[in-house]
Amino acid sequence: MKSKLLLRFIIALVTVFAFHSRVFAIMPSGGEPQKAKYVFLFIGDGMGLAQVNLTQGYLASLEGKIGFKQLTFTAFPQVGLMSNYANDRLITCSAAAGTALATGHKTNINRISYDPSGKEPFESVASKAKKNGFKVGILTTVSIDHATPSVFYAHDTDRNMYFDIGTQLTRSDFDYFAGGGFMKMQDTIGNKIINLAKLAGENGYNVVNTREAFDKLAPGAGKTLVLSSGTAGEESLPFYLDMDPDDITLADYTAKAINLLSNDKGFFMMVEGGKIDWACHANDAATAIQEVIEFDKAIDNAFSFYLKHKDETLIIVTADHETGALGLGNNKTGYDSYLDRLKYQKSSVEVLYKIFAQFRVNKTGDTIADFNKIMKVVETEIGINSRMNSTLLTEDELTALKKTFVESVYYPGAGKGTYGQREPFIDAVIRLLAEKAGISWGSGAHTFINVPVYAIGAGAERFSGYIDNTDIPKRIAELMGISQ
Amino acid sequence: MKSKLLLRFIIALVTVFAFHSRVFAIMPSGGEPQKAKYVFLFIGDGMGLAQVNLTQGYLASLEGKIGFKQLTFTAFPQVGLMSNYANDRLITCSAAAGTALATGHKTNINRISYDPSGKEPFESVASKAKKNGFKVGILTTVSIDHATPSVFYAHDTDRNMYFDIGTQLTRSDFDYFAGGGFMKMQDTIGNKIINLAKLAGENGYNVVNTREAFDKLAPGAGKTLVLSSGTAGEESLPFYLDMDPDDITLADYTAKAINLLSNDKGFFMMVEGGKIDWACHANDAATAIQEVIEFDKAIDNAFSFYLKHKDETLIIVTADHETGALGLGNNKTGYDSYLDRLKYQKSSVEVLYKIFAQFRVNKTGDTIADFNKIMKVVETEIGINSRMNSTLLTEDELTALKKTFVESVYYPGAGKGTYGQREPFIDAVIRLLAEKAGISWGSGAHTFINVPVYAIGAGAERFSGYIDNTDIPKRIAELMGISQ
Repeated sequence: MKSKLLLRFIIALVTVFAFHSRVFAIMPSGGEPQKAKYVFLFIGDGMGLAQVNLTQGYLASLEGKIGFKQLTFTAFPQVGLMSNYANDRLITCSAAAGTALATGHKTNINRISYDPSGKEPFESVASKAKKNGFKVGILTTVSIDHATPSVFYAHDTDRNMYFDIGTQLTRSDFDYFAGGGFMKMQDTIGNKIINLAKLAGENGYNVVNTREAFDKLAPGAGKTLVLSSGTAGEESLPFYLDMDPDDITLADYTAKAINLLSNDKGFFMMVEGGKIDWACHANDAATAIQEVIEFDKAIDNAFSFYLKHKDETLIIVTADHETGALGLGNNKTGYDSYLDRLKYQKSSVEVLYKIFAQFRVNKTGDTIADFNKIMKVVETEIGINSRMNSTLLTEDELTALKKTFVESVYYPGAGKGTYGQREPFIDAVIRLLAEKAGISWGSGAHTFINVPVYAIGAGAERFSGYIDNTDIPKRIAELMGISQ
Repeated sequence: MKSKLLLRFIIALVTVFAFHSRVFAIMPSGGEPQKAKYVFLFIGDGMGLAQVNLTQGYLASLEGKIGFKQLTFTAFPQVGLMSNYANDRLITCSAAAGTALATGHKTNINRISYDPSGKEPFESVASKAKKNGFKVGILTTVSIDHATPSVFYAHDTDRNMYFDIGTQLTRSDFDYFAGGGFMKMQDTIGNKIINLAKLAGENGYNVVNTREAFDKLAPGAGKTLVLSSGTAGEESLPFYLDMDPDDITLADYTAKAINLLSNDKGFFMMVEGGKIDWACHANDAATAIQEVIEFDKAIDNAFSFYLKHKDETLIIVTADHETGALGLGNNKTGYDSYLDRLKYQKSSVEVLYKIFAQFRVNKTGDTIADFNKIMKVVETEIGINSRMNSTLLTEDELTALKKTFVESVYYPGAGKGTYGQREPFIDAVIRLLAEKAGISWGSGAHTFINVPVYAIGAGAERFSGYIDNTDIPKRIAELMGISQ
């Protein structure tokens, strides 16, 4: 009888315990974090909250709706706000911010995973992951030796030491690189000419630079370096707005990376939407929106992988900093927004600069005729000064524009910008379109506003709340179970 | 022997169970949310992420640091991003956004807790809380009948029906109101003159409008209405930057509310930092920063209460929308920030407008003498054009400023702004200071960027991630255990 009572007590206890254990299992663990085996770190260069919201509002406007359309990453369950100041400046650069995101250390402007004094290199979470047996991929839309990708595999006191950064890539032993080209493909060291593609080949890399060869890449390909700069500026992929249907995209790079890097031990992958920043430096809203959309498509490929490996996959989406002081309203339009007007722009500033350069070459000497001619191009390519698009310019706007045109074409005043040649006339027209759409740009540089963090999957809750950019790689390393 | 084994098994089981229960207890509950008995909803009107970060960066700069100083609310563990578009416009207003935050329904611009068609009133979470036996407080720095406070106790198809809104206040039976005055204190209904303070008294309110009477308020005071507009504009409290040491602040209002409303059943309190918005409409950065600091002090009082009642208190801090398209960088300063230059501004636009009005009255006819005279005031009051502050103006800036001055003083061009009279000259000088400090304003109106949400306490995790403004009152009601 006593035994029977005891037995009943045990059954009751086991039942309650089992219930609690089940509840426990579906909740984020406090002490022991879930193991993240497959980790994606997406960095939208220059992608602040304003850039994300502009894209969401624009997509809703195309459907005739007032509101926001969810992107894949904006629907992620965890949201954080991240500070990103550098050690020596409140407004950071991609090198210092990238170093923080890759290594967990604040440093000075222009350092590539190096300490402020320039004496001590910092190890990246990608290098640690590689050492711990994970496969590693570094993907970007800009040159593969640009600041954001390079902080994950190289160490230099200055981001402009492109050739040295490139040589470090070839020695990194990482499994997959995909981006634009090298900023400096070859250099003479001593009396020897060194070519980086050749050096990569000598170091065991399978170097791929055609769409055909890229498509053929399959598991077992070994260490791979994909270079694809096409006709775009500074060895980058073309802007998404300018791409042909068969151009290789960041989403393609990501799908291929998943295909090549999937393995039982796991992987770490950094994927950069690098030209969001470039579009924002030029205050080119329509192009920036398309870059965010392309970035989201790359994320969507990772999300499909996550759906098959939910318990072991972690996706983090963030930015290094905001670019352009983008404001989602302006003084001219006040409380009204006309975001769908941005859809008329057919080409990015990169292409428009080239078109404008032809005007400089072919100017007729008749400024009025030349101006009228370029205004036709502007109407076709940018959709500005069009009655049908409700983007007619005022007399004052036309007068100012004509002045800029004459200065640009007849007395070339174009200066060298952060990335690529600037054309004051094109920049002015692009800004007018933004104004007609109901937004504003406060700067051509970066800003110090917090950037959003979105996360889903194993340990994603560690990226919510208020964090600093140095927290990101520390928490990734912890969740992957690799040593600090 | 068998019994002994069973006993050991039971002990082992109980031990494991006890451990799991302990872990379970400290984690956010999944199915059954914690009960929030004391709820604070802080609304920083116009306080976007940029306004928060500017304040943080400014406070760090005063300590000679590069980075961000934590405010009480920025250190809260839960962070969310909230969309705030109205039913009929992407850029919302305080009435439509307030209605969403108070009732959980999207509506049209200017509605005060009324549906878009103007036929159906919406019930606020404050009214529901009152019905369910909670005490209710509505606190603000602006007039007590302004859009944000009124959506919690009134229903009107237009936010400008101030007198009607005021009469609804007197009938609300809410326990504590504290704000500026009424926009329309009395009106003639039929042939009867109705005074709102008198009406409130007749409806059982203890109406208090002196510092002395306010200080004496103690538990048991009964229903209370505190009015304190002082010498500031539009029946609001003075800007924090303009306050005298013994002026009543939002932090005082909050401390008193906690004192008066504490009871065993619990309370709901809405606290609005209403003049952050006003400062941002005027693009007055130094004043906006001080308003955020005052707002944070009010939050800090709630936080002290939370520390004593952690398990039952919920604090949510958010905004209705961003105002001003504030950018944390600009084209003139590029990558550099000089936030500490904002510390030289001694008075808000509200006071500066009054100073300027005197110049219009006392102009001598000698424009150069008058301009030189006002530039002395500008140097003293705003800290602009001072060698010591590194804010010297360029020749171009001075020329433009002189033109604006002449237009403002000799041919008054001041228009009526959203709140209060605008003075183009003062606005121009204020914007120059912002520019010298390294920030930018893209608009004098609101924008559609997401606003941040910060939360701590019972059920705070329900306010993290990506949410819409309509989610806020729904989740509060759920957590308070009151019917929808």
